[in-house]
Parts: sequence; structure tokens; C-alpha cells
Amino acid sequence: SEVKKIAVIAGDGIGPEVVAEAEKVLKRTEELFGYKFELERGLFGGIAIDERGTPLPQDTLEMCRNADAVLLGAVGGPKWDNNPKELRPETGLLGIRKALGLFSNIRPAVVFDCLKDASTLKPEVLEGTDLIVVRELTGGIYFGEKFRREGPQGEEAVDTCVYNVTEIERIVRQAFEVAQKRSKRLASVDKANVLETSRLWRETVNRIAPEYADVEVEHVLVDNCAMQLLRRPSSFDVIVTENMFGDILSDEAAMLTGSIGMLSSASLGEGSFGLYEPVHGSAPDIAGQGISNPIATILSVALMFRLTFGYEEAAAAIETAVKNVLDAGHRTGDIAVDKSKAIGTTAMGDLIVAAI
Amino acid sequence: SEVKKIAVIAGDGIGPEVVAEAEKVLKRTEELFGYKFELERGLFGGIAIDERGTPLPQDTLEMCRNADAVLLGAVGGPKWDNNPKELRPETGLLGIRKALGLFSNIRPAVVFDCLKDASTLKPEVLEGTDLIVVRELTGGIYFGEKFRREGPQGEEAVDTCVYNVTEIERIVRQAFEVAQKRSKRLASVDKANVLETSRLWRETVNRIAPEYADVEVEHVLVDNCAMQLLRRPSSFDVIVTENMFGDILSDEAAMLTGSIGMLSSASLGEGSFGLYEPVHGSAPDIAGQGISNPIATILSVALMFRLTFGYEEAAAAIETAVKNVLDAGHRTGDIAVDKSKAIGTTAMGDLIVAAI
Ligand SMILES: CC(C)[C@H](C(=O)O)[C@@H](O)C(=O)O
Ligand SMILES: CC(C)[C@H](C(=O)O)[C@@H](O)C(=O)O
Repeated sequence: SEVKKIAVIAGDGIGPEVVAEAEKVLKRTEELFGYKFELERGLFGGIAIDERGTPLPQDTLEMCRNADAVLLGAVGGPKWDNNPKELRPETGLLGIRKALGLFSNIRPAVVFDCLKDASTLKPEVLEGTDLIVVRELTGGIYFGEKFRREGPQGEEAVDTCVYNVTEIERIVRQAFEVAQKRSKRLASVDKANVLETSRLWRETVNRIAPEYADVEVEHVLVDNCAMQLLRRPSSFDVIVTENMFGDILSDEAAMLTGSIGMLSSASLGEGSFGLYEPVHGSAPDIAGQGISNPIATILSVALMFRLTFGYEEAAAAIETAVKNVLDAGHRTGDIAVDKSKAIGTTAMGDLIVAAI
Repeated sequence: SEVKKIAVIAGDGIGPEVVAEAEKVLKRTEELFGYKFELERGLFGGIAIDERGTPLPQDTLEMCRNADAVLLGAVGGPKWDNNPKELRPETGLLGIRKALGLFSNIRPAVVFDCLKDASTLKPEVLEGTDLIVVRELTGGIYFGEKFRREGPQGEEAVDTCVYNVTEIERIVRQAFEVAQKRSKRLASVDKANVLETSRLWRETVNRIAPEYADVEVEHVLVDNCAMQLLRRPSSFDVIVTENMFGDILSDEAAMLTGSIGMLSSASLGEGSFGLYEPVHGSAPDIAGQGISNPIATILSVALMFRLTFGYEEAAAAIETAVKNVLDAGHRTGDIAVDKSKAIGTTAMGDLIVAAI
């Protein structure tokens, strides 16, 4: 079959460890399904700041542009937290999203059976929770003009939140399409009672909704959504929202499942190209100890197979392998009830590879 | 004792019902403690739109300005939801906050014993949760310039988020002072890795923190805070944040206690003047049935006594009365386990009045 180029960005903290296991999975699927992957590796985030003086080196960006998909571990850590803006890992993250046109961040929040009790929510409330947050990723207050100025009351800081109809339409359409493949319920989240950008957002949703007549649309104010996620998480199917609200709500949604360490995410643009990464961060506190959980990153590979390559069979095979390994009782420390029986990162990766 | 002027704004939905019970409490404390209250009533919100063509009539605003404190029921309802902006209840809300200089919204999120099981969080996670969100209320993206324009990609909407050091300093100082009277832990919430306003916010907190050396300060990113509120709610004491983040996080915090129907809030300015209201909304679905719960509004009176009038003894007496009535097993429908035994709004108000 056709060669697929995958840009692999290990990043910082536990990034390299978990990505190494995901690479084993890629290799195994080549053997089993006859795929051909060409992996290229690039520096990004804190390590790129240290070695190259910038979080997003030009060659890393070029590598991503030439690839069919990107697999990202995690970036950031306390070491770079007090750096000036252009020397911070998150500046690289915002830069790569914008440069690659990844306007849509898709984050499933599901409850893993083996982690049912890990949530701080009552099991009966959580029952059946399986939602996706579709977050706009390259617009809004993240990318608007920002500056300081002297005002009558002293120094002032300004951030600008801008959205145009084209930006709103493309993300909302994508959310409608995701909803059509699921339970056909879309919650559009905004703050239309206060923000002009939210009013344009809501108008746009209402304008294109008739084209997706099979999808039931609900408008939810962001403050209310933060409450309803807690009160009735299982009633949500697809949530679509702008960049800043999506940042907050997708983290809230992920955390309430109790499975945050197992969740994967996709950042997509117009075509099939996508960047895939675990929802969890670089966990600098446990980096290098070989105890991190590679499952979210391995499941990011499954997501890449499904959404970018259309390798549905292999995607399902990976997901089933993960499920079987968990059902057999194997756990890394973060998800183990009996920590003394926990296995390490490579052991978990090997078990999943063997189970595919 | 000195006459205190209280501006009473019943508002919409269940507002008039719950405010009527709070007025009984005011009356009872006059008899018991020798206070003198002069109540004036004004139109505000949806009812003001209907009767006067504006959500915030000038005479209502004047009445508030001449008062020592304002007691507000609730405003809004579906009837006005699709009105143009200047004819919507929330425009009145934003207008009154700005006009009265109420830059600080203080919202306690505590768990009521009788509602321990009403939360969707596990009781062991909730145990000991008692936090206050101090939200900046008259700045940020709520009040910055907003407009539409034609751009290269079609219609664009713009919202501007502005903060100056003076605005940040006064709210942060107030939060430090609240923290000093409590467990001396302050979490300042921002998005300093992305927003310029957040960077100014964080710099300001760090600059004045040494003046409150007994308070332990933690900076938390807003997305992380949305998660930590779920994971470790009881570890928070005072949370201070800007307007939009505060809107979202204070609702999340209130909902996780399970006690949202019982929580009161204060909006304060420079002096002792304040506006007091329940956290819950106007609940149009149950308005006029006499079944709403007046406790949050009655507790708003206690908060007014404590924060504006310095009537600590009476504030405590009201709170104890509420506790005793609840301990005796009386419940309105919203908090009753056995709905068939629920009592109505006036019955609950009368019991509390009798218990003071
Ligand atoms: C690191 C930060 C800039 C980033 C964001 O806010 O987008 C992160 O929180 C995320 O959600 O990917
Ligand atoms: C009604 C709305 C404008 C208001 C706000 O966002 O401030 C409300 O949500 C609140 O928190 O008081």
C-alpha cells in the first residue's frame, strides 16, 4: 500500500517515552496490515528551545508540512515557564496550529470501564457519558491583536477576540458532520448575551442548521454549559465552541470522565491532514522513570488511522488490543488500584503490541 | 439605630416570591434587633422592559444610588430572550453593575449538610468544600469595545478585552483581604500563557502579594482550574479571577456543591455599598406556583447585614435560623427527598422568620 509519511514529535517530559510505544504500534500494524509508514522526527517545544533557540524550528514545521499526519507527545515543563513569550513551548504549540491550518480540535471525553471509579463524579451520573468537544483552534482571543498601552488609569493590557463568518462556518460544519455520525445532537456553546463574536457564532449556527436537518441543535451559554457538564454529562453528544471556551470546557469534560490519562485528541484542517496527541500533558514530575501510561498516545495513533488514513480496520484493532490488555488486568501506575502490581511504560506498550 | 435604606428589586420569574420572604426577614430583625430599614421598590429587568421600555429605568438606578444596599431577586426569562440587545434583561444587569461601580462579585460555594447528596460529586471528594470565588465584574471582555465589520473573509465580529492595573489591583486586594479572614490561601486564575491581560493580571498579583505575606498565593491557568475544581474542590479557599473566567468558574464551583439553590452572592464597590442576590436565576418554569425556595435570598440578607451594615449578630441569627429550620426537616420541593412532604415558599419563609 501507499507510503504514509508521519512526522513524529516526541517533545518534552514523558513525551519521548509514550511516543516510543506508539511507534512500536505503528511498526506492528505495518507487519500485520501491510501498511508502509515513513517516520521523520523533529524537535519541538522545550527541547527545541534548548537545542535550537526556538520552540518551533523551521525544519520541524517543514517536516510537518510534508507529512500526511503528525504524532505529538507532549510539550512544556517548569524549566521554560518563566521564559519570555517567544521562548516558551506553548508559543510553539500556537504557532504550529496556525501554520498548519489546524482549525479544529476534536476531543472525545469517554469513560473507560476500568476507570469508572477514578472520576470524582458519582458513577450513576457518569453512566453513558460519551461526548466530543469540537473546539475552534486558530481564531478568537488566542490569535487577535494583543498589546500594552498607557491609559488614564495606568498601564493597560488589551486582547482582541475576532471571528469571521468563514472561520465559524467551517468549524460548525465539521461539528455538524461529526454529530451526524453519532447521536445527532449538537450543543453550540457561546456567550451570546454578552459577546458580539458569540452573536455572530449563533447566527451562523442557525443559518446553516437547516442543511443538517437531522441534527438537533441546542444553544448553551458557556457558564451554563460549565454547570450542565457536571449535572448531566451523559446528555451531551457533540459540543462545538470557540477557542477559549473550548480550552476550558474540553478540560472540564475530560476531567469529569476520570479517564483523562487515557484520552486522545485530533487537530484537523481542511483536508485529511491531522495532528494527533494525548490530552494529558508532559508530566515532568514522572518523566524518565519509565512509569508513564502510553495508552492515550497509542489511541492517538488509532485516531490518526481512522481520521487521516481511513485505516478503520487497524484503528479498531488497536482499540480492541487496548481494551483486551486492560480487561486482562494490566495497569500502569496512574490507573492501578494496587500500585504494587503496576507495570511500566514499555511493558504496557509491548502488551498492547502483542495483543493487536 | 440609624435608618438604612434598602433598594428592593424583585425582578422577574420567582424573583418577587423569594424577595417577599426576604422582606419578612428584614421586618423581623427590625423588631428583634431595633434596626430601622426604609425599603424602596423599583422595576428592573424583564418587567421594566414590559412596563417602561428599558431594563434599567433611570429612577430605579437613582433609587439604588440613594440606598445603602440593594436586594435583588432575579431577572430574565424566555419572553425577552430574543429581544434586541438594549431590550434584554441582562443588559440591565451589566448596566447596573457598571453604573453602581460594583467591580467585585463574591460568591461563596459551600455545601449545605442537608444537600450533601444533591451534588453529582462523590461525597468524599466534596467533603470540606468551602470556597469563595471573587470575580472582577466591571471590566474585561464584557465591557470592551464590540463591533461588526466587513473583512476579507466576510463579516467579522470583534470583542475587546481590556484591563488596566488599577482595575486589577482593587479586585486582587479585595481578594487578598477576603483570604486573610479565611484560610489564607488565594488562587489567582488567568491564562497568562496566552493573554496579555492575563500577564498584566499575574504581574499585578505578584507585585502586591508581598503586602499580604500571610496569604499563600497560587497561580492557576483557567483550563487547569476548571479541572482542579472537579478533582480537588476542597483544596481551594479563595479564587480570584477576571470577569469572563469568573462567570464560568463561579457557576462550575456553585454547581459542584450541589447547593446552588441555596447560595447567595454579593456585588461590591469601593465603600460598604453592595448589591445582594441569590446565585440561582429567575426559574420562569416554576414562577407563580408558590413552590420556589426563598433560602438563597434570605441568606443574601444575612450577607448584606454582615458586609454592608456590619450587623454580624443578626447575620448569624438568620443563618442559624435557616440551619435550624433545615435541621428540623423542613424542605421546599427543590431540596426535598420526599417531594410529597415539601412545603411552599411562604411556609418556608414563615418558619425561618419564626426561628430567628
Ligand atoms: C498550552 C496552551 C497554550 C494550550 C491552549 O490553551 O490551547 C493548551 O491548554 C491546550 O489546550 O492545548
Ligand atoms: C446574565 C449574564 C450577563 C450574567 C453574566 O455573565 O455576568 C450572568 O451569567 C451572571 O453571572 O450574573
